[in-house]
Amino acid sequence: MSDGEFDLIKSLRESLSLRRLDAARGLVRSIGDDAAVLRQSSKLDTVITTDLLVEGVDFKLTGDEATDASVIGRRAVAVSLSDIAAMGARPRWLLLSVGVPQKLWERGFARTLIFDAMEYAAGFGVVLIGGDISRTPEHIVVDSIVLGEVRRGRAVLRSGARAGDQIFVTGSLGGAAAGLRILEGSRVRQSKNLETAERGLVARQLQPTPRVELGALLGERRLATAMIDLSDGLSSDLAHLCRESRVGARVEAESLPLDSMLESAGIVADDALSLALDGGEDFELLFTVSERDARKLPKELDGVRVTRIGEVTRERGKVRLLRDGRARLLRPGGFEHFRRDDEAGAR
Amino acid sequence: MSDGEFDLIKSLRESLSLRRLDAARGLVRSIGDDAAVLRQSSKLDTVITTDLLVEGVDFKLTGDEATDASVIGRRAVAVSLSDIAAMGARPRWLLLSVGVPQKLWERGFARTLIFDAMEYAAGFGVVLIGGDISRTPEHIVVDSIVLGEVRRGRAVLRSGARAGDQIFVTGSLGGAAAGLRILEGSRVRQSKNLETAERGLVARQLQPTPRVELGALLGERRLATAMIDLSDGLSSDLAHLCRESRVGARVEAESLPLDSMLESAGIVADDALSLALDGGEDFELLFTVSERDARKLPKELDGVRVTRIGEVTRERGKVRLLRDGRARLLRPGGFEHFRRDDEAGAR
Repeated sequence: MSDGEFDLIKSLRESLSLRRLDAARGLVRSIGDDAAVLRQSSKLDTVITTDLLVEGVDFKLTGDEATDASVIGRRAVAVSLSDIAAMGARPRWLLLSVGVPQKLWERGFARTLIFDAMEYAAGFGVVLIGGDISRTPEHIVVDSIVLGEVRRGRAVLRSGARAGDQIFVTGSLGGAAAGLRILEGSRVRQSKNLETAERGLVARQLQPTPRVELGALLGERRLATAMIDLSDGLSSDLAHLCRESRVGARVEAESLPLDSMLESAGIVADDALSLALDGGEDFELLFTVSERDARKLPKELDGVRVTRIGEVTRERGKVRLLRDGRARLLRPGGFEHFRRDDEAGAR
Repeated sequence: MSDGEFDLIKSLRESLSLRRLDAARGLVRSIGDDAAVLRQSSKLDTVITTDLLVEGVDFKLTGDEATDASVIGRRAVAVSLSDIAAMGARPRWLLLSVGVPQKLWERGFARTLIFDAMEYAAGFGVVLIGGDISRTPEHIVVDSIVLGEVRRGRAVLRSGARAGDQIFVTGSLGGAAAGLRILEGSRVRQSKNLETAERGLVARQLQPTPRVELGALLGERRLATAMIDLSDGLSSDLAHLCRESRVGARVEAESLPLDSMLESAGIVADDALSLALDGGEDFELLFTVSERDARKLPKELDGVRVTRIGEVTRERGKVRLLRDGRARLLRPGGFEHFRRDDEAGAR
């Protein structure tokens, strides 16, 4: 899972003393990473993730049903593919559970959603093998489940970063959050009038591109020591990685690869930085590499840049942002579905 | 998946020509069985199923939140465990995607649901390894994903029944549908006044028992030639099995193991037979065994009876019911979420 929301489950599991059972069964990693890792054979480990998208929370309908169905289906798959990529694994199989109101079903909504999701997955070599369809009273829900494979022991966890490791991200940052803001702003209904840059930013939100090849490459070549995908936002996701690795981090503001469309859309520097740090859903990969291996990293793959943004420190739990020669503490400011302190207690 | 609803996906997949890719990847079986089967190693196959339960469609709230959370969580897992059992496999791992409205979250609903589901799964040796939690605008949704293992090539499909095979069911029939009727009737709100039998029937609906041990045994000993779990109802599920196996069936009405609580609750014979045939969600196993192997079948396991109810015929696609010396054609009358002819065309 990509959010910290499942933290409470971790403690519940511990109260059931399931840990010994896990080891006996070949569970390598479960709650608290982008995906669970299962040891299935002497050569391969299986990784598996599930992502629930809910209408009105994770997406809104525009009224153009064919487009909505397609965008939702593809996005659900993209989110799960990104989780598998963040494990350094290669995605293989997809299951989709889809709930739609009766009226949308009658108009072929579920069929379009599933077909387009399946076609999209096939483009990454991923095959739909199962799922479930249900009626819902009102809102659309999609649960996307993806299984991937990785060579035994090569899954990249969140917990492997060491002080001195270099921190990298793929692609660019802040675009998806800017796109969401545009969608939620007043201009949504005149989508045909959106400027090119704004349309590009909206596409970053609605049609994220999971970094499937880069993720698999980082796992196969054993380059990343730890990895997570940017679903909650850099400040939150880097905090997750640091917490699991029991390290800290220092990030250089001027190194952050801000989405170039932010400037084109007239978003000023401070705002762009805040979108890059705290805006979620870029679905880029954030990973750490030992100093020795950093030069082996490709500068880009299939046109996707890889950018060094900082380094891992010994300051456990602390993420610092360097800007204009000054360092400030970076607090997790990304999106979470629920405020954790509602019920799960202190972190 | 347990319903015929995913039929449309089958044709969509074929239009994408994914079949060759399936074989190359080690996909043994996907859409159209209780679970998908993946070849993972030289010794074991992995089976995987997903089941989406939606408030207002698959369950209703009673207002007692702690009980509701527990019942929904356990039921979601039970439904998936039943799918794995119907493959002759042993369940191993669980993932849960849970969506709840903000207010219920604040009152600990999701925590209770997940904890009780996890505890329930652990009772079957199944470990929670992941999941996702989301807010929903209004209704609760739970997607339960279970992975199981079976010795290579021993997964029991729906498609293996041959003419002359004997047809069996586990446990008893009609109880869950009667329980649903009681829940939906006027007496729901005076649940403390329900008669013992009625309470028992309600429990059959709310707390089904997946036939985990019997399913695994039938797979391990290679006794069942085909198997399906009774989620839609005997008439529908037997039709699914016959369709996949390209055979017909003859069922003897007087052999059907009607739930004894039906009579205790004052449900008359014709009504009881109709509940047993067309009522869904008993989550018993329906399976076929070659005449030669039929005597090797245990009469019961852990107190769960195994009852012969008929035999497989060559009359492809036809299921006949024998009653009082007369045969009539049995049409699928079980529950489906959507009427298939809404959009998927003729079967």
